Amino acid sequence: LHEASVDQPDLTVRDVGEFGLIARLQADLETRLGLASNGAVPGLVLGIGDDAAIWEPTPGAQQVVTTDALVEDVHFRLGTTSWSDLGWKALAVNVSDIAAMGARPRHALVTLGLTPQTRLADLRELYRGLAELAERFDLSVIGGDVVSAPVFVLSVTVIGESNGPLLRRDAGRPGDLVAVTGALGASMGGLRLLEQGSSSSPEADRLRQAHLRPLPRVAEGQALVRAGLRCAMDLSDGLLGDTTRLCERSGVGALLEAERVPVDPALLAAFGGEARSIAIAGGEDYELLCAGPPAALDQARSALAALDTPLTVVGRLIERPAGDPAVRLVDALGQPFALAAGSWDHFRG
Amino acid sequence: LHEASVDQPDLTVRDVGEFGLIARLQADLETRLGLASNGAVPGLVLGIGDDAAIWEPTPGAQQVVTTDALVEDVHFRLGTTSWSDLGWKALAVNVSDIAAMGARPRHALVTLGLTPQTRLADLRELYRGLAELAERFDLSVIGGDVVSAPVFVLSVTVIGESNGPLLRRDAGRPGDLVAVTGALGASMGGLRLLEQGSSSSPEADRLRQAHLRPLPRVAEGQALVRAGLRCAMDLSDGLLGDTTRLCERSGVGALLEAERVPVDPALLAAFGGEARSIAIAGGEDYELLCAGPPAALDQARSALAALDTPLTVVGRLIERPAGDPAVRLVDALGQPFALAAGSWDHFRG
Repeated sequence: LHEASVDQPDLTVRDVGEFGLIARLQADLETRLGLASNGAVPGLVLGIGDDAAIWEPTPGAQQVVTTDALVEDVHFRLGTTSWSDLGWKALAVNVSDIAAMGARPRHALVTLGLTPQTRLADLRELYRGLAELAERFDLSVIGGDVVSAPVFVLSVTVIGESNGPLLRRDAGRPGDLVAVTGALGASMGGLRLLEQGSSSSPEADRLRQAHLRPLPRVAEGQALVRAGLRCAMDLSDGLLGDTTRLCERSGVGALLEAERVPVDPALLAAFGGEARSIAIAGGEDYELLCAGPPAALDQARSALAALDTPLTVVGRLIERPAGDPAVRLVDALGQPFALAAGSWDHFRG
Repeated sequence: LHEASVDQPDLTVRDVGEFGLIARLQADLETRLGLASNGAVPGLVLGIGDDAAIWEPTPGAQQVVTTDALVEDVHFRLGTTSWSDLGWKALAVNVSDIAAMGARPRHALVTLGLTPQTRLADLRELYRGLAELAERFDLSVIGGDVVSAPVFVLSVTVIGESNGPLLRRDAGRPGDLVAVTGALGASMGGLRLLEQGSSSSPEADRLRQAHLRPLPRVAEGQALVRAGLRCAMDLSDGLLGDTTRLCERSGVGALLEAERVPVDPALLAAFGGEARSIAIAGGEDYELLCAGPPAALDQARSALAALDTPLTVVGRLIERPAGDPAVRLVDALGQPFALAAGSWDHFRG
């Protein structure tokens, strides 16, 4: 495939057919990652090439599975996203869901919906980004499907496992503190910069990178479990929206203090006064949102410090408010905090 | 949802939004199947509604996973396929892959790519067909994703397990007999009748049903394992094409005797002299193709007789032929068997 791509940069999916394509991409993955279809991956019994893949669960481990699809011109535009970034992100958002359970990712399935005009060279780039993420988080691609489609579609399933308790959205209790890992808003800031096509600076580069290549908090999720936490989810739709969902699943309400929300420093540098609103309302940060008793959160903060990841309390869970919205955003005096206009709807279109 | 559909038959995905849709479909599935999102399904720890689903593997069981996607106007047309048949088939083709491993299906993930115009009433029908298949083969829908797409896309992942050995494509050896379950060709015959829009008869109805609602051979796959077989796959692309793939994975060749291939009686009635060629070249029968020593095949035939499923020897594996095609199709005298014109290319378009 490498030589073909170099010699025939315009070779398309139509030229090689479904089976030719699968064989080439598989060979590519194996070369890049040392992934063999049989035996080389711990626990993997049979990979790509049969009716189904087979793995041996670690004895006593619960298995965890999640799936997320990305559609061209709905979730990404090939004008602002490179193929390799797209491969990274499609896998990263699924790995983030596994991280948010406190589990370790093991295996991935990748389904591609391709137009006949899709170039092989671009798919190689896609698999390069995908393999970089897989390598970093030690997971392997064990199966998938390739179909024709009118636009590019990427549907990824990731399977993980855990021998301990897991983090759930429905385990929040009134009195729990609410905290987030890292700092928020960089991804939405990066998306705005990408859409504006604005110039280069270290801050702008960092924000764009945060949007294009999010880093799932895999070690952090497992550390939260070990610290005694039982309630978490990942931040994909923004702090306000995701806290609302956690509250709905747990049957509680929440008070979030806007001034406590950790704002990404590059976001502050690039967006100034609007940065806090972007951090609160923006999505796709793939940080972890968690809730638990103060003592467990203290333990978790120490554990995450060892990973160089801050854990910041941003509010607390309360009894479910009758009638009122589940989540209230307040300032330091307990008064409603007003978000900057436009920050809320950007992702929702 | 039921009342909404009755009162507002034209309610669309756009009207209810992603979260409204997921809640409605989930409630629908739970009502229909008694599937709860927590606890009611054996082995299921946490179903739809969190970042990921959690299950407990049966101790000592290997886990098996497969995924298959269907795209509107590529794999089906809503003109000739009803929504409920589509739901059935999307799950059935994945369950068939699990059956072909000799495993039992357990859990499914369903990803929908929907246009904003998709009607809720149609999605309810889709889920009705899906739930009928799930109920029949005792598996539960534990997760998925809903995204916007320019055409309807359905991507399904099924997870199964087995405490015994599994059936693989690469386990064929020279000297093994090759056999198929059931009778072949009904699905392709049914597709032709659907495209011709031809009139009703018991045979025509049976053929159309075979195409629209294939029955995966789940009990049969497990019986093949118990009988000592180790090599099988399901027939999705037709006997010739799939035998070629089995041979490639096993590093062998095959001789298939055309006159031994079991032809579906309804296909014979409807297509006469062309029926045998359709049975040999046609796809989507979702019968099992297996290979093994004569004694194991004898055992398997007895075991499958108890399930009322015939197992018919159609050829044998040989040393890989140098240069020649992996599979040779011959008549009773060992001479090349010529397929009726057109039977081979129908599915390949």
